[in-house]
Amino acid sequence: MSISFIKGHGTENDFVLVPDADGALAGRLDEQVVRRLTDRHAGIGADGVIRVTRTETMAEFGGLADDAEWFMDYRNADGSVAEMCGNGVRVMARYLWEERLVEGPVLALATRGGVRTVHGEPDGTLTVEMGHAKPAATRQLSFVAAGGRTWEATPVWVPNPHAVVFVDDLAEPGRLVEPPELRPPSLFPESANVEFVADRGRKHIALRVWERGVGETRSCGTGVCAAAWVAMRRDGAGVGARYVVDVPGGQLAVTERPDGELLLTGPAVLGLRGRVNL
Amino acid sequence: MSISFIKGHGTENDFVLVPDADGALAGRLDEQVVRRLTDRHAGIGADGVIRVTRTETMAEFGGLADDAEWFMDYRNADGSVAEMCGNGVRVMARYLWEERLVEGPVLALATRGGVRTVHGEPDGTLTVEMGHAKPAATRQLSFVAAGGRTWEATPVWVPNPHAVVFVDDLAEPGRLVEPPELRPPSLFPESANVEFVADRGRKHIALRVWERGVGETRSCGTGVCAAAWVAMRRDGAGVGARYVVDVPGGQLAVTERPDGELLLTGPAVLGLRGRVNL
Repeated sequence: MSISFIKGHGTENDFVLVPDADGALAGRLDEQVVRRLTDRHAGIGADGVIRVTRTETMAEFGGLADDAEWFMDYRNADGSVAEMCGNGVRVMARYLWEERLVEGPVLALATRGGVRTVHGEPDGTLTVEMGHAKPAATRQLSFVAAGGRTWEATPVWVPNPHAVVFVDDLAEPGRLVEPPELRPPSLFPESANVEFVADRGRKHIALRVWERGVGETRSCGTGVCAAAWVAMRRDGAGVGARYVVDVPGGQLAVTERPDGELLLTGPAVLGLRGRVNL
Repeated sequence: MSISFIKGHGTENDFVLVPDADGALAGRLDEQVVRRLTDRHAGIGADGVIRVTRTETMAEFGGLADDAEWFMDYRNADGSVAEMCGNGVRVMARYLWEERLVEGPVLALATRGGVRTVHGEPDGTLTVEMGHAKPAATRQLSFVAAGGRTWEATPVWVPNPHAVVFVDDLAEPGRLVEPPELRPPSLFPESANVEFVADRGRKHIALRVWERGVGETRSCGTGVCAAAWVAMRRDGAGVGARYVVDVPGGQLAVTERPDGELLLTGPAVLGLRGRVNL
């Protein structure tokens, strides 16, 4: 079999998009195929695969079809299913707009994490509603250890688990080859992504992110939201605050809407297209 | 235009192979196209592009056609032309054998650096003749500095310039984000690749490599040869010595033939195939 693909990325968080409007490929993009596509040395290479399909083809999520015509069927590079990907939503939205499969400045996109709304910004970036951040239920202190050092951490769920740590210099954790240690482990039963955050100026932070099960990455949409949300609280930023966040792969911005919804704004780039034999 | 591609790698040094037997694509794989193909986030991603063509189509190198039917037209990820690539030669040889474009256990392959002979090994690995190593013309001491530390270096040309450094632990140079400093600069007028080498056992070393103009990479064929050659001299290894070399992307072996020719042995993997629009 041969399938069409489009490579795309948002702040270097990259994806293989597979157009599949009628859902014919639903059962065929299995774990093995996803691993072959995303393999950086033997495949096209990507952080994940996005099957672009009509919501009505998704038995389990077909009920969302009234609200959102298109569904983001997202799989991590290891083949596992993920509910959502903040950078991936922007790239898929860019594709739908560019192919004229949708119209208008606001797009509702269905994901396993529910319907997300994407807005086009005047400067060409895209904004995605990412949901609310939730702090830990307890006030128990938590810590992250890496490179022989330990920092106090702030746990937060967006809704996946994160541990946010402030550092003076992003080089402090050293070369991250092993997962940072999370303490106490009981606070992170599903482990967590770790964000090392340094200040860059007023309402401007920079981060390095360790994604659980992946390693250090160029960007992580929910990690950026988690870090900005914790920094806003540390700074006593008011309602509607907007923070710029530098990641290794580029720059994003996070705005906290008065209702607590976090808006993630950033670029989405479509790259090469072609067909690949599976 | 749409072209065929095959992704392949040797110890994670990866390539986009472009079949072009009759040379029709010679003028079309320009710097811009090579950069688009090799871009890791917007393209297929690779360390280089190998146009697989018949030697007779190469005006400048057509004279090699009597000795080698096929020519490796190699370009680095930035679009610049390279004479040779030790890992790339194995991958191209694997492709020619698998497609039955050549026969027999020994293959002569033309490159801009001359004709190279490739042998298939019983265990499925491939061996490439890499040429001779040449030490510096002077006995002037030279040094490499990185991560706040300085080591004495051994310069060697294979035929591209290398500076080989022995370390107790490969973590010593830290996270390499800037090029290591070479002293005195006069000894390296074209800069140099830097190999940090640690011992792993008898005739067994491991290395990290910084490639000039690229950064730290998973593997470097000439760097592996340079490091093994310097280690053989340090150890007083006899004629015909074979050293195993661990690189971040896998394992290679270097044998010094009695005539001084260095033989590089390692794996070659072919991955996904398809077509891509340019």
